[in-house]
Amino acid sequence: MLDPLPFQISARDRDTAARAGLISLARGRVNTPFFMPIGTYGAVKTMAPNELLELGAQVVLSNTYHLYLRPGTELLKQTRGLHSFMGWDGPLLTDSGGFQIFSLTGLRKIDDDGVSFQSHLDGSKHRFTPEKVVDIQRIIGSDFMMVLDECPPGDAPRQVWTEAVQRTTAWAKRCMTRFNDTEPLYGRPQYLVPIIQGGTDHALRRQSAVELLELDAQAYAIGGLAVGEPKEELFSTLELLDPILPRGKLRYLMGVGTPADIVRAVSLGIDMFDCVLPTRNARNGQLFTPTGKLNLRNAAFKSDLRPIQEDCNCLLCTKFSRAYLRHLLKTREVLGLRLATGHNLRFYLGLMAAIRKALADGQFYSWSQTFLARYEGGPDD
Amino acid sequence: MLDPLPFQISARDRDTAARAGLISLARGRVNTPFFMPIGTYGAVKTMAPNELLELGAQVVLSNTYHLYLRPGTELLKQTRGLHSFMGWDGPLLTDSGGFQIFSLTGLRKIDDDGVSFQSHLDGSKHRFTPEKVVDIQRIIGSDFMMVLDECPPGDAPRQVWTEAVQRTTAWAKRCMTRFNDTEPLYGRPQYLVPIIQGGTDHALRRQSAVELLELDAQAYAIGGLAVGEPKEELFSTLELLDPILPRGKLRYLMGVGTPADIVRAVSLGIDMFDCVLPTRNARNGQLFTPTGKLNLRNAAFKSDLRPIQEDCNCLLCTKFSRAYLRHLLKTREVLGLRLATGHNLRFYLGLMAAIRKALADGQFYSWSQTFLARYEGGPDD
Repeated sequence: MLDPLPFQISARDRDTAARAGLISLARGRVNTPFFMPIGTYGAVKTMAPNELLELGAQVVLSNTYHLYLRPGTELLKQTRGLHSFMGWDGPLLTDSGGFQIFSLTGLRKIDDDGVSFQSHLDGSKHRFTPEKVVDIQRIIGSDFMMVLDECPPGDAPRQVWTEAVQRTTAWAKRCMTRFNDTEPLYGRPQYLVPIIQGGTDHALRRQSAVELLELDAQAYAIGGLAVGEPKEELFSTLELLDPILPRGKLRYLMGVGTPADIVRAVSLGIDMFDCVLPTRNARNGQLFTPTGKLNLRNAAFKSDLRPIQEDCNCLLCTKFSRAYLRHLLKTREVLGLRLATGHNLRFYLGLMAAIRKALADGQFYSWSQTFLARYEGGPDD
Repeated sequence: MLDPLPFQISARDRDTAARAGLISLARGRVNTPFFMPIGTYGAVKTMAPNELLELGAQVVLSNTYHLYLRPGTELLKQTRGLHSFMGWDGPLLTDSGGFQIFSLTGLRKIDDDGVSFQSHLDGSKHRFTPEKVVDIQRIIGSDFMMVLDECPPGDAPRQVWTEAVQRTTAWAKRCMTRFNDTEPLYGRPQYLVPIIQGGTDHALRRQSAVELLELDAQAYAIGGLAVGEPKEELFSTLELLDPILPRGKLRYLMGVGTPADIVRAVSLGIDMFDCVLPTRNARNGQLFTPTGKLNLRNAAFKSDLRPIQEDCNCLLCTKFSRAYLRHLLKTREVLGLRLATGHNLRFYLGLMAAIRKALADGQFYSWSQTFLARYEGGPDD
């Protein structure tokens, strides 16, 4: 049955829907709002688990679809889950694989029972049902499990979105039934998170939310955003959902976003985030700073001996110059990728810590205005 | 003028030519024999400088040819050398670039004055002379500088080798003259190391050594080996040179080799080593252990939850399983490359520490026999 999720809100902003809180999980306490570094295959790009802790990571995100294909559930059973396999003792969240099936795999066939697909790796055939996705996540042992959802392309016609919402609700109910009928395999509570779909259509979003609230889950995710829609539509969707979602439950905005997006989404009541930007931008030589992004490929940095960010305590900023990082990126030295990834994660995780502090101090709105003005007035973003 | 190189031999093996000693450099003490991790572009593959120290690295090797092309001498002047640019405060050795010019560049024209070549990166034209190579290494600020040498292919006819030896001697003399006529740019002594050439031809090797000894340099390198010749010829060349080289001076065997090669070369009087094997094998999923190499691509390791090496204190061995490393390598996660590189370097650096201890304890010969029997009787090498 449902374990209660001990989530307590400790501060609410006067001027916005922003809130700070504390989740007490078996694997440790998590301060909200928080950002989850992405470890698709059970490893956050270039980073060792102890480094993630040092950077301020609280929860790591991994992916059911990818882990199911590699290393596979047999090995994860043997290791009694992903935590011990990857050496991360803190909480884990696993995405259900819905998004990957719809974005990565070529041939797939969806019906009301589930989805058949071919691996993007070798074309081998597989089938996910809502029940199977719960079973796999029981084996993974993730602290937060996500339901199987249908993710149409952002520009799909309304009829497709309508059907996707209906199916997502039906699948979420089946996931919850399976979840309630099974137990964690390794003795620690897991939590199942339904995903609200509906694109940027307010009626569909409302319908999806209302239907899923019947499940009385302990946290709710908002999916299908940050897939190319205008930013206003992202934020207006969050505005729409804020009063619909229970005030005392966790809210997870999937796949969002830039530092500015995150600050705005926090002000609209979001508690949990994940995004590929810190790691992907590191690969492209784009480094986050409080005044915007620096593009290290730019010749201007060739002999710039300053650190990326003066007041940052990451390995890159404390020991190396912009010119050295640029040199490493130009010569394709893996150390460059590591240092850039570490800095970008530090920036995101430090941003979340600053948000939490501003909330605790009752200064979130003014802090956020200062942050946004500085960030968006900066050089590149 | 020549700064005296403070090298003191503290132990000599009774049964072999092996010796242990201490070099006292301005940038720190170096215990011999030692192995230099390779940081071609001013970064050891995947590794941060503090990690190299933790792994037991004493001296890092970098490369004049590569640094001259990228980041170039202008930037290295600005940073007052490579040490501060790369954040490595310990001693550095730079290879002169001779080997790279002869192995990497397509078009090159050698004459008695120097060598003209085209960059392997963009085809741009450059010229190295013995004097220029010294000047560049003054700018790099490496503690050990290497002379410009001519490196014919291993299978070149004897006449080519004869001319290469003559030219290498002439160039070494010019390097030493330039070295004596110039001063370190950053206030710390540098040492210039001539390179004995001559392939596996004993007469040429002897000639090269005798001619270069006239320079009264403070350390001597042996180049042009480990380029495909049979192992017996490598070792017979070292046997030949041992009584020719001054007993009190450092001896550096360039580019060698496997763990077993290193143990045998130590027993033939070598003090300094470098080799791409620990980093290159890591990329290929080959992990060194006291009983030989493990090839992690092998399906046998798919669900092997043991560490790579039970008694190793590296990050990989203390925190992760063979199965996890194999998973990271299969999914091309950079963390896998890092962990494997760290382990292989730890193995090499730990091997050198074990060699030094055996020498200090007066047990080198018996230790080496035990090591070689175990290593060469192991699974894969």
